[in-house]
Amino acid sequence: MSPATPVPLKEYDVIIVGAGPAGLMGSLCSTTYGLSVLHIDERPEPTTAGRADGIQPRTLEVLRNIGTINGATEGKGFVERQIMQGVRVQEVSFWDPTETQPLARTSRAPSCPDFIDVVDNYTLLLHQGLIENAFLDEIENRRAHLPADKLSPAPHGGCFRPYLFETCSSDPSTNAKYPVSATFAHAETKEKYTVRAKYLFGNDGARSLVRRAISGGEVGDGEWQGKIRMLGDATSFVWGVMDVEVKTDFPDIMSKCLIHSKDSGSIMVIPREAGLCRLYVQLQQDTAEDGIQKHFDRATATEEICKTRAQKILSPFKLEFGRTDWFSVYQIGQRIASRYHLEDAPGIYLGGDATHTHSPKAGQGMNISMLDMYSLAWKVNLVEKGMADPAVLLPTYESERRGIAEALLAFDKSYSALFSGKSPKADQLTADAEKAKNLGAVDAKLFIETFKSNAEFASGCGAIYTANILNATPDSDLVKNYPKQGVFNAATKLIEGRRLLPGRLTRAVDANQVDLQQEIKMNGQFRIHVFAGDYQKSQPALKAFDEFLSSPSSFINTHRPIDGASSSIVHAKKEHRHIEKEVSNAVSNPFFTFLTCFSTPHTEWEIEDLPWTFRRERDQVFSDDLFDRRVPEAGINAPLHKKYGVDVSKGAIVVVRPDGYVAASVQLNADGFEALNTFFDGFLTGVKAKL
Amino acid sequence: MSPATPVPLKEYDVIIVGAGPAGLMGSLCSTTYGLSVLHIDERPEPTTAGRADGIQPRTLEVLRNIGTINGATEGKGFVERQIMQGVRVQEVSFWDPTETQPLARTSRAPSCPDFIDVVDNYTLLLHQGLIENAFLDEIENRRAHLPADKLSPAPHGGCFRPYLFETCSSDPSTNAKYPVSATFAHAETKEKYTVRAKYLFGNDGARSLVRRAISGGEVGDGEWQGKIRMLGDATSFVWGVMDVEVKTDFPDIMSKCLIHSKDSGSIMVIPREAGLCRLYVQLQQDTAEDGIQKHFDRATATEEICKTRAQKILSPFKLEFGRTDWFSVYQIGQRIASRYHLEDAPGIYLGGDATHTHSPKAGQGMNISMLDMYSLAWKVNLVEKGMADPAVLLPTYESERRGIAEALLAFDKSYSALFSGKSPKADQLTADAEKAKNLGAVDAKLFIETFKSNAEFASGCGAIYTANILNATPDSDLVKNYPKQGVFNAATKLIEGRRLLPGRLTRAVDANQVDLQQEIKMNGQFRIHVFAGDYQKSQPALKAFDEFLSSPSSFINTHRPIDGASSSIVHAKKEHRHIEKEVSNAVSNPFFTFLTCFSTPHTEWEIEDLPWTFRRERDQVFSDDLFDRRVPEAGINAPLHKKYGVDVSKGAIVVVRPDGYVAASVQLNADGFEALNTFFDGFLTGVKAKL
Repeated sequence: MSPATPVPLKEYDVIIVGAGPAGLMGSLCSTTYGLSVLHIDERPEPTTAGRADGIQPRTLEVLRNIGTINGATEGKGFVERQIMQGVRVQEVSFWDPTETQPLARTSRAPSCPDFIDVVDNYTLLLHQGLIENAFLDEIENRRAHLPADKLSPAPHGGCFRPYLFETCSSDPSTNAKYPVSATFAHAETKEKYTVRAKYLFGNDGARSLVRRAISGGEVGDGEWQGKIRMLGDATSFVWGVMDVEVKTDFPDIMSKCLIHSKDSGSIMVIPREAGLCRLYVQLQQDTAEDGIQKHFDRATATEEICKTRAQKILSPFKLEFGRTDWFSVYQIGQRIASRYHLEDAPGIYLGGDATHTHSPKAGQGMNISMLDMYSLAWKVNLVEKGMADPAVLLPTYESERRGIAEALLAFDKSYSALFSGKSPKADQLTADAEKAKNLGAVDAKLFIETFKSNAEFASGCGAIYTANILNATPDSDLVKNYPKQGVFNAATKLIEGRRLLPGRLTRAVDANQVDLQQEIKMNGQFRIHVFAGDYQKSQPALKAFDEFLSSPSSFINTHRPIDGASSSIVHAKKEHRHIEKEVSNAVSNPFFTFLTCFSTPHTEWEIEDLPWTFRRERDQVFSDDLFDRRVPEAGINAPLHKKYGVDVSKGAIVVVRPDGYVAASVQLNADGFEALNTFFDGFLTGVKAKL
Repeated sequence: MSPATPVPLKEYDVIIVGAGPAGLMGSLCSTTYGLSVLHIDERPEPTTAGRADGIQPRTLEVLRNIGTINGATEGKGFVERQIMQGVRVQEVSFWDPTETQPLARTSRAPSCPDFIDVVDNYTLLLHQGLIENAFLDEIENRRAHLPADKLSPAPHGGCFRPYLFETCSSDPSTNAKYPVSATFAHAETKEKYTVRAKYLFGNDGARSLVRRAISGGEVGDGEWQGKIRMLGDATSFVWGVMDVEVKTDFPDIMSKCLIHSKDSGSIMVIPREAGLCRLYVQLQQDTAEDGIQKHFDRATATEEICKTRAQKILSPFKLEFGRTDWFSVYQIGQRIASRYHLEDAPGIYLGGDATHTHSPKAGQGMNISMLDMYSLAWKVNLVEKGMADPAVLLPTYESERRGIAEALLAFDKSYSALFSGKSPKADQLTADAEKAKNLGAVDAKLFIETFKSNAEFASGCGAIYTANILNATPDSDLVKNYPKQGVFNAATKLIEGRRLLPGRLTRAVDANQVDLQQEIKMNGQFRIHVFAGDYQKSQPALKAFDEFLSSPSSFINTHRPIDGASSSIVHAKKEHRHIEKEVSNAVSNPFFTFLTCFSTPHTEWEIEDLPWTFRRERDQVFSDDLFDRRVPEAGINAPLHKKYGVDVSKGAIVVVRPDGYVAASVQLNADGFEALNTFFDGFLTGVKAKL
């Protein structure tokens, strides 16, 4: 370690342990929100090959929303470079033995079926190192925008390596500002560091030491016995996974394939960048005479065994191997942490593989892990800027993300069980499903049905949050007990707790055709979408909303950040070359932004004529006049209003959370405005504006 | 100049003089075709600000087709970085004095109207230096793929600077292999170099010294009197142009605007990257008492005068200036070279501003200039690989590109005259157009009509090549005199001499949804599109076509390159992991590639079952089952066959030139196959295959 290599300071806002996809997402988001971050990882360098490799459609949507801070100068986009480096999976083929052939394609399914409304309708495949490097470069670029008091020297991408985590604890009574204390050591110099922070994110993987530090207890047979338990099962299936160059006459080698051989087990093929192919090979003893599968000893698995097995499974197709880029062996275990956070360790949160482990084959782990930290960071940001009480807001992290992890495990369990099962014999395939199950065989039809029905979850678009303080669903306490019925949920058919469906609009200021869901980049703001419908008809309501917002009792004036804090370092999202002639009394609030959309074409009205709130961000006013193939009957006549179920003569207000999830939808009238106050009062505790 | 700085060798395939957009395109294409290039430029470094800034839709399509050679490793795409760095113009606003207001928006028009079928339906705006750097980096990356005998040391991007061109000549009788001789000098050391080459591209701008060297004669009053004459007129309108930061309350500052003031002249506003704004300001004397416009002396133009004028024109809107990035003054001249090439200077070709100059305001110059060299390079490639006789093929460069330049000048002349004219007085605007013209005023209605009707040409999509040996249009000699009528032109409604219209298809090998027109990157190949329609019905025709192609008399066997030359350095466009079991006798030809498209979904047939020619490139087989909003009535039922006018029960063969233009369309039957032979015999003179 040269003397110029930076060493950690004594205090940070956030310490992040682990620089895999979860930790990197935590660091990228925290940096974006202007927090100081100490990021450590035990590895001397980022991943160079293999590991996780699939980015799902919803994750791509999130990465697009994170955007690129130096796009205009660098010309190398955060998500764009990953898309360029990877390959796309748009279909999955199923191969099984049939009555006439040892191996035949029995079915195909789109990997992201068309009923899923998403722009990137594919899984992007590239090795984890390319993903990590995109994050590290983007973090590095964003660090340059941090205010001076939040920036401290760090290696590229803000990540100190190789540093070994030793322990952590949290005690607000000894240090109210920095309750978390963490100790770690440089892996080579052995020098120890004790650092204090407001938060610590444990993103150190399935064998998380952070988890162990706060959980205590002992590990036995893979089962944690501390305060946090890893619930679930280990399974006996052993898999080899390799990234390798292949030559084959197997026709579907450029597609994702799930292949069950008659007697030799299963393989999953995934096409990869740079001519590589990922093979997941089920390792098993050759079937014994009694037809009962023997356990395969993980310790005996070698690359050669996997290759031989792969050739056997794929027979009669030829399979020749070139360079191996990466090889690993694992045993599928489905586990979920009983807690992501403990009350006696305030500020310490677990996420990623530290909280859930599962079969890698459904390509979900990295995605859910990244999105864990994406979800935690904006909530921490609200707390840190004085906008919310941690005791009220932060528990939603565990409840929301643990819900997703549970759904993932249910998904993965059925998917893996089907996939790991012995392939059905020819006479069982189309016959008695129950009998097939009893014989430990795969019911091919069931497998495909499971695959299809799970497609929305697999895409990430089916990750649904349920009723809580943030999601004003019809069954939420807020809505159920709200005195006036029909104010919430009735003005649109959007579903709270789900991501905002994509829509393409004309941006009035420059007539650019844009994706509404990407117009506000991840910046910590609540996005208040005003679907105003017909321009003429909505004028009174817009005027009333503007007046409401400028009143001292509106949510933007009752919940303001402390010390004039901003919501993020992402300030001028677009160029403002416009002098506003008139400055209203209404104070803007950095945690809320307004997007206005008319069904009337933008050529028929003027931004200048809109009330201040809605013309303040001149580039957030749109008209809904672009054809959407999902709403063909609307033509260019307000297709997005139609998709969202908004009556163009009445309009609607839709609150979208900083993570792109629909939080609430209300009427565009005085009842709706009041309802927004009530909604935000449910979890915000910001400072009152001095008007 | 340090000793390590490379100096030019003695011989190259191509010398390119000038490293603006035209020269860079020439270098990028020539390098892609595997030719050795000496590129010199008089400037010590690439453009750092200003100059040309608009990339039109068709040019974007071409840049996408050039692609990125190191995409997967670099993650920084050639066109993608430019798109990321620029801003998009999708609308133009027209502002004029009206009866009630000194300045009002009188009209708007989409900059690329929806009837133009193009993927990038906008003009991309970014300064010329960003464009040049994207080219230089891409050339550098491609140079690394050159064979050893074509690669020689050169500065970054292959461009030697600052080198001053002195003279050139060509004489095959003294050196048959390298007839061109060029002399130039290093601008600082004054050291002189004489280099020989097969070709010299004169891309040294409006005052081209290459043109002067081959043309001879004298320059007088801007008019060349040599063998090449610059036809056209200088005009008296003087314009200042600046890239500047502005603050204004003018509402359309984020759009492209054409603004005519009542008495102060005209201004064009173009939004630009990095918060800049480009202003084209018409400079004029204040109108005299007699109403006649006085000539403005170009020498007196300063940045301050332009700024003051701009403020006057834009009044009553406020206009404040920040940093000026670039400022220049020019006088509009519309000129076109009488020749692009002289028979007594074989191998020397002019292109870009050396052959046509015009007002920059329509944003066409850089585009047409780039496309000049794009068009020349693939023809030179065919000649150099022994596929074509230069005396037959190369004259089409001048005839095709001069045709486009003439269309551009006609377009520019009407556009500029309207724009430069004095703004109409309020009482003239809606009144007598003839009277307005007599008064030297703009007829606002005529202006807007001209703008709209010219939109297709402005997008680049309206650049049409007429009948010649390459374009088998109905009025071409080939088709008119062809014995069997209806073999050409009848099987599709595509128009020869126009670019292939875009289409989106499912690529069978991996079910990726792809843009057909981008599937074959610029690699020098003719793209033989087989629109096979219904899979079952077309089997006999495909089998017959395959047999025809494998016969010694087919065009792929009668026209082969010399010495086994390849068409370009762009080899494996996609990864091939497939072992082909059977190798047909048919020899492939590097200058032809086959793309097969069925109307039947890819799930209903197998690539394996196709004849060799059509399954050879496994990733060039498609099904036509993706919704196209331009063919909504087809749904997912063969919309592209419908768009192209192909009967799915008959099919068609479409030959697309290496530059993406439709060359010929014929029946998918024996008559059609013979017609292709006749077509290619018209201009190819390759080597016969030894079968």
